[in-house]
Amino acid sequence: MIILCIDIGKTKTLAISLNEHGKVFGKFVAGPSGMWLKEEVIVKNVREAIEGCLRISNIQLNDVRLISISWADLDTPKDWENAWKVIEKVGIEKDKVLIEHDAVAAYYAITWGEPGVAVIGGTGSIAYGVNRYGERMRSSGWGWLIGDEGSAYWIAVRALNAVSRAHDGRGKETILSEMIMEYFGIKEELEILHKIYKELEGDPTEISKIAKIVDKAASLGDEVAVEILEEAGRELASAILCIVRKLNMANDRVIVGGLGGVFRSNIVRESFIKSIKENVSNAILRGPLIGDQAILGPVIIAFRRLGLTVSEKIVEAVLDGLGEKF
Amino acid sequence: MIILCIDIGKTKTLAISLNEHGKVFGKFVAGPSGMWLKEEVIVKNVREAIEGCLRISNIQLNDVRLISISWADLDTPKDWENAWKVIEKVGIEKDKVLIEHDAVAAYYAITWGEPGVAVIGGTGSIAYGVNRYGERMRSSGWGWLIGDEGSAYWIAVRALNAVSRAHDGRGKETILSEMIMEYFGIKEELEILHKIYKELEGDPTEISKIAKIVDKAASLGDEVAVEILEEAGRELASAILCIVRKLNMANDRVIVGGLGGVFRSNIVRESFIKSIKENVSNAILRGPLIGDQAILGPVIIAFRRLGLTVSEKIVEAVLDGLGEKF
Repeated sequence: MIILCIDIGKTKTLAISLNEHGKVFGKFVAGPSGMWLKEEVIVKNVREAIEGCLRISNIQLNDVRLISISWADLDTPKDWENAWKVIEKVGIEKDKVLIEHDAVAAYYAITWGEPGVAVIGGTGSIAYGVNRYGERMRSSGWGWLIGDEGSAYWIAVRALNAVSRAHDGRGKETILSEMIMEYFGIKEELEILHKIYKELEGDPTEISKIAKIVDKAASLGDEVAVEILEEAGRELASAILCIVRKLNMANDRVIVGGLGGVFRSNIVRESFIKSIKENVSNAILRGPLIGDQAILGPVIIAFRRLGLTVSEKIVEAVLDGLGEKF
Repeated sequence: MIILCIDIGKTKTLAISLNEHGKVFGKFVAGPSGMWLKEEVIVKNVREAIEGCLRISNIQLNDVRLISISWADLDTPKDWENAWKVIEKVGIEKDKVLIEHDAVAAYYAITWGEPGVAVIGGTGSIAYGVNRYGERMRSSGWGWLIGDEGSAYWIAVRALNAVSRAHDGRGKETILSEMIMEYFGIKEELEILHKIYKELEGDPTEISKIAKIVDKAASLGDEVAVEILEEAGRELASAILCIVRKLNMANDRVIVGGLGGVFRSNIVRESFIKSIKENVSNAILRGPLIGDQAILGPVIIAFRRLGLTVSEKIVEAVLDGLGEKF
């Protein structure tokens, strides 16, 4: 049985093909297909991801039993309508397709469908959880202007603010100033304004890239950077904890974990784990899932829909097939 | 002697005509002319402000000795070039015109040109100061994404974040939730996302309007709102204090004060004053200057350029002429 899984994110569209034993036949990456892009771009990239994956796997579309998609930014009913319109234009049978919000897919990737909560720490941040009664709840994910605490964007903006405060003498000195100026190829802190507002036009995806610099500064011992990353970890944990509380899961077996590039940072990861352990003593931690591993979400959703058992062995096979370790 | 003064802001362009005694002959308000607008819009609004003011004052352009302009968002050399291009297109002699960055004009409005520091707390925030040696420095004003601490935008975003945290159970309950939902005409917190990102497209000027709601909530005793406004006051003071420190003014006679709509809030004002008094015991507080009173900046700049003395009497006459009290 062949299953096609697609993870549609802010920076790329990843497709893999696999069978019911978790054996991955092929993996293909196309450009982003998030809902804020033009429809023709989305259609093109989704089609490219599917066709590329089938070609590499040496499989025909007819051989595919189910296409399971995790889609970023599917927030409004209008977004869902557009998503289905894209599927139609790509020319695949709707009956064969499952679509889920990326936060829901993240939940499946971490918990395999058992009671628990997952948080995404990518460009943005959002948490989603389900308890044993099937009650579900999301938290965080209020976007780059209002929320997304602990995300790469949030870390980047805190770092830029720290640089501004250090420059003005309103805050602690930090090597972030030097490092961010070097990143932008400028010699004066105030030139950051031109970079951020005029050149990057405030683009959250571009600004988010500064988060990597923060992790580097922290590994060099910069206190300001360490503080930002530790707070990011606490914020990501907090997004999980409020769901555990509100869905009354504190005394249950509850599987929790994080996904996304922010968890590459040791400091974020440790601060996140510490905060989870301090607050939910019975939490079973899984992950973090980083990079292509998020595709595990649509994989698990597909397995459940098809009545297939998800085991550690299968998950390991999928992650091995991606060339990424759990 | 007739002087024309213009205050170009993010929401409007205000022009007044006055004489060397501070007698105001006319006042006219046109649309905004900030540098982020299209050139033809800026030219139209600046021209409209000047022509409207002259008409109301029953004065000819030839009668005007000096045109003194305070201009928002004049940050880069390119902005300055554009500003002079606008003057040319409006068709007024460049020799007759003085242009200043609005932070510099704010400094003159508060200090009348003596050693001191002023901070603008409007849609954005920025401080500017000069010591007795003529050394000058700005602080804050890093824009809505990175900084602008204590501004109306900053207050609004903090309020939206507080609503998101309360909704998720990550933060204290607050009546801001109810009040902001009422403001937007929605029934569910998450609908705020649609309002902010889709309808308002993240427009800082529109989002800033929420600051008024925060002040109302605080006056009703909402703790979350009170905390946000108190912190805004401290942040605005902090922007002044770092200049006082860096320019070694702590032991001098130093005139400080704030301008802008944020200072309408009693809580912001009191928190600001408290923080200033605690940190610079010898500070002489002036203002706050609110609404049209910011036009005092270009007025004082014009008076100094023309070698005219600025006295309390003259300042009072100007503010009386505006229909606003100091």
